[in-house]
Amino acid sequence: MAGPYTIEQAKELDRQDPLRSFREEFVRKEAAMVYLDGNSLGPLPEKTTVHLDRTIREQWGRKLIRSWNQHWYKLPERLGAKIAGIIGARPDEVIVSDSTSVNLYKLAFAALKAREGRTGIVSDEMNFPTDLYILQGLIKQLGGKHSLRLLKSIDGISPHLAELDALLHSGTALLCLSHVAFKSSYMYDMEKVTRQAQQHGALVLWDLSHSAGVIPVDLNGAGVDLAVGCTYKYLNGGPGSPAFIYVKRELQEELENPIQGWFGDQEPFDFSLQYRKAEGIRKFLAGTPPVISLSALEPALDMILEAGTGPIREKSENQSEYLLSLIRHWLLSEGVHLGSPEQVERRGSHISLRHPEAYRVCKALMDPGVGDGPVIPDFREPDNIRLGISPLYTSYEEIFRVVIQLKEIISEKLYENYPRTREGVT
Amino acid sequence: MAGPYTIEQAKELDRQDPLRSFREEFVRKEAAMVYLDGNSLGPLPEKTTVHLDRTIREQWGRKLIRSWNQHWYKLPERLGAKIAGIIGARPDEVIVSDSTSVNLYKLAFAALKAREGRTGIVSDEMNFPTDLYILQGLIKQLGGKHSLRLLKSIDGISPHLAELDALLHSGTALLCLSHVAFKSSYMYDMEKVTRQAQQHGALVLWDLSHSAGVIPVDLNGAGVDLAVGCTYKYLNGGPGSPAFIYVKRELQEELENPIQGWFGDQEPFDFSLQYRKAEGIRKFLAGTPPVISLSALEPALDMILEAGTGPIREKSENQSEYLLSLIRHWLLSEGVHLGSPEQVERRGSHISLRHPEAYRVCKALMDPGVGDGPVIPDFREPDNIRLGISPLYTSYEEIFRVVIQLKEIISEKLYENYPRTREGVT
Repeated sequence: MAGPYTIEQAKELDRQDPLRSFREEFVRKEAAMVYLDGNSLGPLPEKTTVHLDRTIREQWGRKLIRSWNQHWYKLPERLGAKIAGIIGARPDEVIVSDSTSVNLYKLAFAALKAREGRTGIVSDEMNFPTDLYILQGLIKQLGGKHSLRLLKSIDGISPHLAELDALLHSGTALLCLSHVAFKSSYMYDMEKVTRQAQQHGALVLWDLSHSAGVIPVDLNGAGVDLAVGCTYKYLNGGPGSPAFIYVKRELQEELENPIQGWFGDQEPFDFSLQYRKAEGIRKFLAGTPPVISLSALEPALDMILEAGTGPIREKSENQSEYLLSLIRHWLLSEGVHLGSPEQVERRGSHISLRHPEAYRVCKALMDPGVGDGPVIPDFREPDNIRLGISPLYTSYEEIFRVVIQLKEIISEKLYENYPRTREGVT
Repeated sequence: MAGPYTIEQAKELDRQDPLRSFREEFVRKEAAMVYLDGNSLGPLPEKTTVHLDRTIREQWGRKLIRSWNQHWYKLPERLGAKIAGIIGARPDEVIVSDSTSVNLYKLAFAALKAREGRTGIVSDEMNFPTDLYILQGLIKQLGGKHSLRLLKSIDGISPHLAELDALLHSGTALLCLSHVAFKSSYMYDMEKVTRQAQQHGALVLWDLSHSAGVIPVDLNGAGVDLAVGCTYKYLNGGPGSPAFIYVKRELQEELENPIQGWFGDQEPFDFSLQYRKAEGIRKFLAGTPPVISLSALEPALDMILEAGTGPIREKSENQSEYLLSLIRHWLLSEGVHLGSPEQVERRGSHISLRHPEAYRVCKALMDPGVGDGPVIPDFREPDNIRLGISPLYTSYEEIFRVVIQLKEIISEKLYENYPRTREGVT
């Protein structure tokens, strides 16, 4: 996209945006705030507040226990079926419950048991650390006979794909990767990598936390075995909303959930003393799901389904290309480096910038006293500024404003007014 | 308690109730409904609706990601410290996250690893089935070398305590029991049983789901090693609200969480590729907690702390003795049997009745067309009618009404108007 790099151009792009009306469907954030962190915590849809009020006051408050039958018991499956429509799965292949980490634990454990005798686990060094932690813990618990090998990256941006084949072999039990890397935004070719690992007899588990809702994922088309993903990023389910779990239909009978809780039992309300696993995907539930957090997810999913992941991805590509053009025009000359792949087809929906003072630059961006109001990106150690595009919400004007503010902060060294000491968690 | 078994007596008891004002603190249920199922799903405090509205609209909607620092990151610990005050633990020994089943999995796994070489697990046949399912799953995963032996019960009401010593031996790794049995309401002498198992070198894990908030539990005083518990029953945290986990301070370093997620890491936001377990109780977290469901718990805990578990237990004992006197007066002659211990000090806060037509009797109770309005107990297979007393909420008048309604339904065989076919989940 070429210039003229003006706010008027940004406003014109907003006017032409076919998804622009969705922005009005979200609760207003603090006035003058620019929010580019929907990849960490998606914004709150207005309909969710109404829906939650009903769940809380009507279903819990007035109907009490009877709401389990009428509203809640099948919620993990109903939401799972909706997510299936977003990630290219069949409705009975997805269910919602527990955190992404707990779900990854269930599936990785099940996969290693199903590939007993094989001891190789492959991931990459760009993966979510929590995914690696879960795998490290599993290796310890299973007696230390497994080994975890990480595909290296080129400067933290993209994987050394040529080396993947050398990591995979006939002893590989599991390939476990994030579809989109949380720092660099690199996006794998899911189908190609899945087939590559399956040729060695490995099971393939994708973490879709940074792609579900913003990229037209096609799990069935890519022949994916297993997947998990977070719902509080691009799916806008609210802070810590429960994660989803996908198990290919053909594997559901074979794989076993290590955490055998009553919600994964055939008939939980028989209170039989012996666990009898439920049929199908329900087996991968464990305990009672957190209903209010679960319920918050439904209007958000409906909104994604209404907009469609095709148009969402199209806007995401347009906006990130626009952002990249502004970065090239204004920031690359200021000591900022691109921390994401150049090609749009290899990127998720955020762009990472790298700068030696990234932490303090983020502090300055978030300061309401700088520029026209606070800008919320997020910082990722050691030098990443992540700018997340959440297409149903993000405007071109916001993208324009963040780049202008970044330019001012960096060229005038406004970040020097902020301490280097890390504080807090995001 | 003696007669005259009149509604006036019930109303007088309500007027004398020192905790009566708490009832007004809850959201009104459906008009004319009598709710005796707070042991399955506690009612909704009015303050929770205000608190949740703030969490949802202000913290999520307006402040967005910044609320992680300002409000949410320490919530699992803060709520844990409050629960510690309710169950006789030190503030740094309790944390809230995940479901009871997932937490039990973490602790049972950790305990079996810490007692490597020992292969005995002891529980009882009155335990929550999901607790047994988790243990059955663990045994399978750990290679089948462990054995689970269940203490038998006398007619499903109380354990054959004399046989406990024969089940415990020098090879016992873990004793895992529910403090209060979910069907019969039998309550163990926690300290005595804990010491008995510890003499054999076993670790002791109590499930407090049916006692936390309604019984003055003293984990420290009883020398308990490990505990878990549900927060949506007597703690009124809302449907599926996250559970708590207790690890005695002296064991926190030794025990390892099998589900090594990022929230249990020392510095999750360093995004280090190598897991480094957090100090203390925080290590037992796994993934991102469901913030909205978590947040719902806080006003409810404050209410319990304000009332105090001493006065709560006193009212619970008075109300259950009152209920028992009505049962003796009106129901035992109608083919109803007591499914709970006779002695109040061996009972939790519900009373179970048994009747061959219990399922249809419950259906009739719940029918708004019978008596003065629906009564909500719960049914537990095969023949239990549970009447739960939730002292901050339950009135003597409600207790009176349920017994009158039961007498009418049973003596006039009104239950015959309902199908025997089971439906639904509660």
